[in-house]
Amino acid sequence: MKKVADILPGLLSDSSKVLKRSEIRELLKFTRQPGVISFAGGLPYPGLFPVDELKDITNTVLEREGPQALQYGPTEGDERLIEFIVNWMREDEKAEIDKENIMIVSGSQQALDLIGRIFIDPGDPIIVGLPSYVGALQAFNSYRANFIGVPVDKEGMNSDRVEEILKEYSKKEKNIKFIYVVPDFQNPAGVTMTLERREKLLDLCYEFETIIVEDSPYRELRFEGQSAPMIGAMDKRGYAFTLHTFSKIFSPGPRIGWIIANKAIMDKIIMAKQAADLCTSPFSQAVVYEFCRRGLLEPHIKKIVNAYRKKRDIMLQALEDYMPKDAGIDWTHPQGGLFLWITLPEHLDAEELFPRAVDKKVAYVMGSAFHFDGSGKNTLRLNFSYPSEEQIDEGIKRLADLFREVM
Amino acid sequence: MKKVADILPGLLSDSSKVLKRSEIRELLKFTRQPGVISFAGGLPYPGLFPVDELKDITNTVLEREGPQALQYGPTEGDERLIEFIVNWMREDEKAEIDKENIMIVSGSQQALDLIGRIFIDPGDPIIVGLPSYVGALQAFNSYRANFIGVPVDKEGMNSDRVEEILKEYSKKEKNIKFIYVVPDFQNPAGVTMTLERREKLLDLCYEFETIIVEDSPYRELRFEGQSAPMIGAMDKRGYAFTLHTFSKIFSPGPRIGWIIANKAIMDKIIMAKQAADLCTSPFSQAVVYEFCRRGLLEPHIKKIVNAYRKKRDIMLQALEDYMPKDAGIDWTHPQGGLFLWITLPEHLDAEELFPRAVDKKVAYVMGSAFHFDGSGKNTLRLNFSYPSEEQIDEGIKRLADLFREVM
Repeated sequence: MKKVADILPGLLSDSSKVLKRSEIRELLKFTRQPGVISFAGGLPYPGLFPVDELKDITNTVLEREGPQALQYGPTEGDERLIEFIVNWMREDEKAEIDKENIMIVSGSQQALDLIGRIFIDPGDPIIVGLPSYVGALQAFNSYRANFIGVPVDKEGMNSDRVEEILKEYSKKEKNIKFIYVVPDFQNPAGVTMTLERREKLLDLCYEFETIIVEDSPYRELRFEGQSAPMIGAMDKRGYAFTLHTFSKIFSPGPRIGWIIANKAIMDKIIMAKQAADLCTSPFSQAVVYEFCRRGLLEPHIKKIVNAYRKKRDIMLQALEDYMPKDAGIDWTHPQGGLFLWITLPEHLDAEELFPRAVDKKVAYVMGSAFHFDGSGKNTLRLNFSYPSEEQIDEGIKRLADLFREVM
Repeated sequence: MKKVADILPGLLSDSSKVLKRSEIRELLKFTRQPGVISFAGGLPYPGLFPVDELKDITNTVLEREGPQALQYGPTEGDERLIEFIVNWMREDEKAEIDKENIMIVSGSQQALDLIGRIFIDPGDPIIVGLPSYVGALQAFNSYRANFIGVPVDKEGMNSDRVEEILKEYSKKEKNIKFIYVVPDFQNPAGVTMTLERREKLLDLCYEFETIIVEDSPYRELRFEGQSAPMIGAMDKRGYAFTLHTFSKIFSPGPRIGWIIANKAIMDKIIMAKQAADLCTSPFSQAVVYEFCRRGLLEPHIKKIVNAYRKKRDIMLQALEDYMPKDAGIDWTHPQGGLFLWITLPEHLDAEELFPRAVDKKVAYVMGSAFHFDGSGKNTLRLNFSYPSEEQIDEGIKRLADLFREVM
């Protein structure tokens, strides 16, 4: 008598066979051991979530519009929230957009999934960074994209290498479906793309007729210096779509993000979302909208920026203080965001070192997890938003001890 | 100078080309004209949403666990909510399940989408009802399923016809990936599958090695009579997966549903969800959990059942009172749920009649919208959960007037 496990191999889709569990999520299990200081997660600091404000806000929403907030809502999203975002993006980012350019999504991970669905057929080539955000790789992988990697250095994704690839593929008459890029305080490397590279990337898209998926979850979390414009705001021809989220500037719990895209494609995105989940929680949207309407978003972002800047400073200082000198250990100086990236000498393998780090009660994510091809063995990601200031100092000390031992 | 619209045709995926806007959503626009009584929607009655209870509940959740509720959560869902569901399903449904058999989803539409992703490759045959829930057709269509239709009559999906199809396909050596069925108070037809047909369907799956996707959003809303067991609870070999939702028994706004599935497949479903949206809102889950924990769910369901039963009775009475006699107009007598189904004489076309209905200030959904092949022209769906009792009586009167005119 057969059990379902016996017949599943004949029923599962090809897509299901390429699905992978997030290595990072598996890794996080180790980091929950008592006493381990973890730089491995990617979580915002929960002590900053506006819990108290939300008590009053949820009550206001339920009082004012309970039945609507608890009903199904439009697939496109809450019109008031969309309008708030339009005004914000027009003012702060000089983005020339209207309400029709915005759709609310259930976290920006959903945006990555919907983008995958409407652009990727199995085997389609897309350009991603080496390293790249793992959630994007997972989403695109589930549509069986053919990843083409471009190195990310301290100036962001290398646009010269992008040019070479686009030239090569234009000869093959195969379309690169899109270029996926996190220009501001990239996850995982913490680097920001220069204005020159942004301009070049956009020009390349115009020339070689492909588009840019600009993932921008950290942009508002700038600690210092000047922002280069959003690629989506530089683009006047609709070639760049931008993904945003309230997860890092408000909190992840309500799962609210948004896509900015050209009208020519918005209809497809809306239809894909309708099939995926009908609509994003109207209650969550109403709560986020009310938070914004009360003028709480801007001061809240300032609070987060100050807290994360301080944590980054402590991490940078600790690296300076404790890391072995002249040992070929290099790290990025993120001007914002949640992450910092360490490059070890070539002969060291951060994955091999990981169990020894956990023995020393400190954890990170090995850089290879962010490289679809498994490269980047000598790199690792540190998160500075979640651990406390004391943990950051102590954790870097432990890490430095480890590196000193293995050198 | 090309705009993005010029280059999109070369970039869009095959899947994006089959995406369709929901006809029903388009139709709903007409029903918003002043004075129109609409039986077209499929919404629960918002006057029944537990708005007042939620004020206290959201405060409790924020007070007790604000930072966790506003953080990212596990992909599988809130463990407490899962445990509540396990106990409930074991007790009320005699389902032999554990925590590992349940995953929380962002509304059961997401479950349909994830099921599509892990089972359907383009062209794969799946069996659906004629008629079927439109959202399921949309989700499966986005993976380019090959729909095979089986008539649904007053005893539910015709299992004899299912047998013929399975026999035919077993000769072709092509796997029917799954059979999609809404056994209880089906949307759109309002009919419930008999025990005999459930048993036969399950036996057919065992024999022909395919699975059942049992979509069960209305099961708790039974007005009278006895439930046949859930197919998922009858099945001891893991061949039936069941989809549930809090949308109809609590409210749709928080977007919380769940999948019950065999452990052999759960891992795939979790990975697919991770790529799709990382996790369902922990805040929404905590709110729903607290509602359940307080023992409010059961009395709330009773309240809804009483209200909808009364509305159904009024609709049935009005049909009895106003519809032309001996004219070959037939309707279902739903024992629960939200919908009732009318079959007109063969020569009448509910789609053609729709503008005339709107002229008479009454609206419905033409049955053809629920048939993937466009059949069912002489059928239509009426919703009785959303309109008021007075509107139901008056609306059926108007509809009867229309039918009398065209006969």
